[in-house]
Amino acid sequence: MARKEHALIVAGGKGTRIRSSLPKQFLTLHGKPVLMHTLEAFFRYSPDLSVVLVLPEDELKKWEGLVAKHPISGKVVVQTGGQTRFQSVRRGLGRLSGDGLVAIHDGVRPLVSTDIIGASFRLAAVHKTAVAAVRLKESIRMTDQDTTRAMDRSSFRLIQTPQTFDLDLIQRAYEIQETPDLTDDASVAERSGHTISLFEGSYENIKITTAEDLIVAEALLGSRK
Amino acid sequence: MARKEHALIVAGGKGTRIRSSLPKQFLTLHGKPVLMHTLEAFFRYSPDLSVVLVLPEDELKKWEGLVAKHPISGKVVVQTGGQTRFQSVRRGLGRLSGDGLVAIHDGVRPLVSTDIIGASFRLAAVHKTAVAAVRLKESIRMTDQDTTRAMDRSSFRLIQTPQTFDLDLIQRAYEIQETPDLTDDASVAERSGHTISLFEGSYENIKITTAEDLIVAEALLGSRK
Repeated sequence: MARKEHALIVAGGKGTRIRSSLPKQFLTLHGKPVLMHTLEAFFRYSPDLSVVLVLPEDELKKWEGLVAKHPISGKVVVQTGGQTRFQSVRRGLGRLSGDGLVAIHDGVRPLVSTDIIGASFRLAAVHKTAVAAVRLKESIRMTDQDTTRAMDRSSFRLIQTPQTFDLDLIQRAYEIQETPDLTDDASVAERSGHTISLFEGSYENIKITTAEDLIVAEALLGSRK
Repeated sequence: MARKEHALIVAGGKGTRIRSSLPKQFLTLHGKPVLMHTLEAFFRYSPDLSVVLVLPEDELKKWEGLVAKHPISGKVVVQTGGQTRFQSVRRGLGRLSGDGLVAIHDGVRPLVSTDIIGASFRLAAVHKTAVAAVRLKESIRMTDQDTTRAMDRSSFRLIQTPQTFDLDLIQRAYEIQETPDLTDDASVAERSGHTISLFEGSYENIKITTAEDLIVAEALLGSRK
């Protein structure tokens, strides 16, 4: 029997990199907040998906106002976040239980496709970990103190979300001590001894962190219609 | 006295990755071929810049037709390319001489700014090499046979063009034997024993290799107006 599927959407950013007082996940993309696009992408995959949304405490009011204006087509459990992404994810995972799978996804990646979400759950059911990744389009160099050297770009992958896991595995993994090098969920699972399986993400699945990213997202979304 | 500045624009692609019979550099961006935008970017930096354009032999006719329809504001010396990018650059360098600097640039990076071109010449005048590079926005993993491991993304840079060099240095560097791992000009200079200096490129300075890239370029170009 298929295992229960959850999504954990992390929307913690403060909008500092993008020159705006509004957190990035609330910026408007084709008339709707970025975060609403992200949530709808998951409900398009499965209308009765179990979704936990982690939000900073001081954005809950803002969120309630936005939901009233832009109703969402599925049920969302809201959890307040912590000081860091690590703590926010840990809190979100605390809201889930049972023998399931969880897709952890950035609130500011609104262009994630149904195919990618589906692939991540299918692969995580087999391998326990399934992390979206893309090949490098450009050459890559490693930098040292005052020199740099060419690396073989075919050996590297840029990491996206969703990062989908066996729920029990990732809950236990998040019991470790937080350190600054744990930049994503895969690195937390890896620190706890698990092998990370990658699958093919998409160049369109961008993370909105700058003003240009929003322009790019508008264009890519427009081209889908 | 300032040294003579050259630009070597390499337009060798065959349009295989983007589903189109037209080579990528000839695709239309805001009503003008991508390559014309690239050339105009260099003439905006300096109207009397010495520019060599390397084109595949079987695209020369196409090029002449395009120039007739879309006149360029500066003088361009056209050189036919070789079988690989390495050979094309080597041929282009053969058209230049004297104690100058040369900015080698992809024909399919039309959004390069005047600031970046200027910075590359200024830095190359001091350090002999100046390569545009950006930090990674995403986590990065290294892949082995059947495993992957998290890397510290702050140690890496994605490499763009322009890659600007002391002309004599890069001409001599291109005398080496071509190997498949020489993916860009910086790796050729490095193989010849030179230290590669990086400078801050721009996320907008994209390389057009897919259909989505063209959509993104249209949007970014539109937002500048």
